[in-house]
Formats: sequence, C-alpha cells, structure tokens
Amino acid sequence: MKVPDKESILQAAERILPYINRTSVLTCETLNNMFQAQLYFKCENFQKAGAFKSRGACNAVFSLNENQLKNGVATHSSGNHAQALARAAKLRNTKAYIVMPDNSSKVKIDAVRSYGGIITFCIPTLEARETTLQKVIAETHATEIHPYNNYTIIAGQATAAKELIEDIPSLDYIIAPVGGGGLLSGTALATHYFSPATKVIAAEPEQANDAFQSFYSKKFIPSVNPNTIADGLRTSLGDKTFPIIVEHVQDIFTVSETDIVECMKLIWERMKIIIETSSAVTLAAVRNNSRLFKDKKVGIIISGGNVDLKNLPW
Amino acid sequence: MKVPDKESILQAAERILPYINRTSVLTCETLNNMFQAQLYFKCENFQKAGAFKSRGACNAVFSLNENQLKNGVATHSSGNHAQALARAAKLRNTKAYIVMPDNSSKVKIDAVRSYGGIITFCIPTLEARETTLQKVIAETHATEIHPYNNYTIIAGQATAAKELIEDIPSLDYIIAPVGGGGLLSGTALATHYFSPATKVIAAEPEQANDAFQSFYSKKFIPSVNPNTIADGLRTSLGDKTFPIIVEHVQDIFTVSETDIVECMKLIWERMKIIIETSSAVTLAAVRNNSRLFKDKKVGIIISGGNVDLKNLPW
Repeated sequence: MKVPDKESILQAAERILPYINRTSVLTCETLNNMFQAQLYFKCENFQKAGAFKSRGACNAVFSLNENQLKNGVATHSSGNHAQALARAAKLRNTKAYIVMPDNSSKVKIDAVRSYGGIITFCIPTLEARETTLQKVIAETHATEIHPYNNYTIIAGQATAAKELIEDIPSLDYIIAPVGGGGLLSGTALATHYFSPATKVIAAEPEQANDAFQSFYSKKFIPSVNPNTIADGLRTSLGDKTFPIIVEHVQDIFTVSETDIVECMKLIWERMKIIIETSSAVTLAAVRNNSRLFKDKKVGIIISGGNVDLKNLPW
Repeated sequence: MKVPDKESILQAAERILPYINRTSVLTCETLNNMFQAQLYFKCENFQKAGAFKSRGACNAVFSLNENQLKNGVATHSSGNHAQALARAAKLRNTKAYIVMPDNSSKVKIDAVRSYGGIITFCIPTLEARETTLQKVIAETHATEIHPYNNYTIIAGQATAAKELIEDIPSLDYIIAPVGGGGLLSGTALATHYFSPATKVIAAEPEQANDAFQSFYSKKFIPSVNPNTIADGLRTSLGDKTFPIIVEHVQDIFTVSETDIVECMKLIWERMKIIIETSSAVTLAAVRNNSRLFKDKKVGIIISGGNVDLKNLPW
C-alpha cells in the first residue's frame, strides 16, 4: 500500500457510491455577512451514520475480498468510526467487532448496536483499547480496520473534498478539522489532485494541538491525555497521515474551547443544522483569522452531526 | 380581494423570488424504513428568518404601493411572522411595528430587533394584543399585515407547496401543520392548482384542536387558551383560512404532546436538522396513521427552525 494517488481516490468514489450520500453543500447569507467571506459548508453531518467516517469505512470494507471478510472486521473506537464500520460490515453481511471504552455514552453504544456491531468494552485508556483489540482479533481472526492510519480509509475520506470541489469550483481555501488526520490527509490529497490552486487549512483544538506541534516541529509529537470538548479530535496523528499533512497542508490553526462552543451554537442557530463539537473548529478558525479569509471562497468540511441531544455544551 | 387563484400564486412566487430561499427537499432512509413510506421534507426551517412566514410576509409587503408603505407595516405576533415581517419591511426600507406579548422569549425579541422591528409590548392576552395593535396603527398610520387571515399572505405561503410539487411530482399526500391556517390553506390551494391528485392532510396538536373541531362540525370553533408546546399552532383559524381548508383539505389528524416531542427529537437525531415544535406535528401524524401512509409518497412541510437552544423539550 502507498499514499493514495488520484486514481485510487477516483476508484474509492466509485466503490462507495451506492452506499453513501452525496451530501449537500449549504451556504448561509448571515454567516457570509458576519465573516465577510463566501463560506461553503460540505455537510457530512448528513452522511450515512452521521459522519464522513462512512466514506472511509465503506471504502475499506468494500476493498476486502471474501477471504479477508469471512471472519469480520474489527476496530477500537468510541465514536463515529465504530458506527460507520458496523454499518459497512452489515452491508457486506459480515461481523464488526468494536472495542469501546466502558465510559462511552449510551447514545454511541446504542448507535453501534443498531448497526449490528458486536461490542467489547475495556477501560478507557489507549493501551487497554489496543490490547483488548489485539485479543479480540486473536480470538476472531477478524481483519483490523484502523480509523485513520490506513491508506484505504484516507482514500475514502478524500471523496468528501472531491465532491465539494466538483460542486464549488475555484475555492480559495478548504478547511478541515484534524484529529488522527484521516479526513485532513484525504482532503489535502483530493485538493492536490483535483483543485491544486486551492489551499488546505486544518483546524484543531488548542487543548489537543498535537498536529499543530508536529506540523511546526516537523516531527511527530503525540497528544497526552488531551482534554477538549471536541471528542472526535482527541486522537494523535499517525505515521501515514502525518507525512501527507506536512506535504500538502498550508497551515494549522488552533481554536479555544470557547471558540468551539460559540461557533457550534452559531451554526445551529443560523443554519438550522446539527453539527458536532469536532465540526465547529473549522468556523472558529475562520472567525479567528478573518483577515486571511476576507472576500475569499472558503470550503468548510462539516465532519459530522452525532450529538447527545440531552447533553449539550450550552 | 378574493381567494388566491392559480395566477396569484404564480405572481407571488415571482414577486418573492429574489427575497426568499428555494429551500431543499430532504429525504431520510432511516425514517423511510421506520415508517414504511417515502417521506419528502420541504425544509422551510432553512427559509430566510427561519420559517415559511418569510414567504407570506414578503408577498404582502412587496404587494403594497409606496403610499401604503410610507408609514410602515404593523402586526401582533410573538413568533415567526414578527421576524419575517420585520425583515420584509427592512428590505423595502420601511418600518415594522410589532406588538409582542411581554412574556415573549428573549430569543424572539432579539430576532425581531435584529431585523430592525420596532416592538411595543403588551400583556399576553389576545385582547391586549389586538387593542395595542389598533393603538399603534392609530398613532403611526402603518398598514396592518395579519399573520394568516389575509389572502396575500396565503398566496405567499402557497409557494412552499408549489416548489415541493415541482421538485417531487406525483406525491400521494402533502401534510402541513395547522395553527391559524395560513400555511395550510396556501398548501391546499397550491396542491389543488398544481397537483390535484395529491391529497392534503393537516396535523394539529390535540391540545389546540380548534381546526379539527371546526373542520368536523363545519362551523368555526376557536381555541380557548390552548396549552401546547407547539407555540406556533396556538392560534385559531380565521374567516379567510377556514373555508379554504373545509373545501380543499382531506382530513385533519391530531397528535399528543408526547408525539410532538418524540417526533421532533427523531428528526433532530436522524436528519441532523433543527426543526421547531410546531413542525413536528406532521411526522407525528404519519407515525399515528401508518396504515394510511404505508408505501405512499408523502410530502411534509417543515414549517420552521426557530428554537431556543437553551430551553429544549427533552
């Protein structure tokens, strides 16, 4: 396997086409006026299973042959990758073994179960997640599908930016959130191949700024127990995502916890769409860097909309 | 003035075109599977000022001549009509005098003010609202724009169903909420003219069932202090909306308060869009009458998305 080329992103798009939504690109005149920019929101909150993760998961699962699939697929995830993988496995009539921390919210556990995922709980540390996953794989012989440090996953996530570029040509910027870097590296590759004049910017919580630190020091610096409300962005970059980001991403902007909550609420109130905390870092990056984005055409990847409606951050 | 004919709805659509959004029609596979019907959601929560009311308000304000406009427009409303009228007046550089009950939420007061509306508060009774409005009109000589009992308003609201019919031909049913009946009578007329084979159904809170009672007794029975969470549906029908509804609406289904909250949450969770309580009665009507709608193509008018995010009903 190698870094996805143009052809493998085109193949991913074709492979997953029957199983995902071509999501809408929304605009909002109020936000455009407020930020003096033309903002184009690629709404992956409307994606199957509520997040862009369905793209990568479908590309990975539908790339496997019958032999690789026969014992199911496995991953550890407390979030959207778990749901997306469970759904993709169900579409191919195979099992999905999901290792989840035992403090995962009921909403997320129920969602994984609703797609038929088989959950093994573990204590909420990265080490326990990884050892539990290896134990599950040893017992089941399932094929591991890593949530982001996997080129097939990256090629799948790249299709979101590819669609955005098709729908809105000549964007000056595309902004994506960065956690493990699957979405960001896919976005950067798709932009490099399909709209090379467009610059890619990452948005990251200050309190989980491993990508920012790694990007500027040019060496991999992991997050240590990051504490951010943007729960999808607590993971650290991987050895496959980091080099792509260094090569193809223009800059990484960090945002505060207050920025995240305020911009999340702004999108809910003004656009009447439900986005998760991890998706709000992008608009916060625009708000904090208004001179850069003034009068520009800016694509914003809204990564997902899976929220516990009984536990909102305001 | 007379009941809007086909031509006046076409004129309304053309008149308001530059000032409103042609809103998306969304579908949701999960809800289709859950209800075994093909549901098409006309998203007026994405409309300017957050509700279908911008259609009627723009049609009314842009139908007035300079002389009728010179002293501004006036209405009493605690909700979406107030915002929509303030916005429409601003677009024509005239004033909007809005009488609001003094227990209106801060969110709504702020929204009216953000469009430049001039607010006069009164105690929260219908009588106080009407006498205060008459006093404001006597002082200002503004032109009154009633929120629903006005044929120009009705023709404006009719354009939502007209667009839905254009986008999704051969619907078996269109369901709209009913409060004062502006949206419902407009929907019924548009359907009668542009898709006569489609049946129109109204959805109404049990606890504000004046339209249901009036429809079946064939005489106007007003609501008396209705107590429903669907605050946009507490008003009673008017003498202009009621006859249109009796003639062109197939049936009125009532739904409980629990139905409203559950179906509102279901749409938020599954569709990732923000709809207000008054919009949830439609899906609740489908859920309570599943045999009727089984395997049918059903258009659902989502009336608005103006919600106090700090005060949700779950």
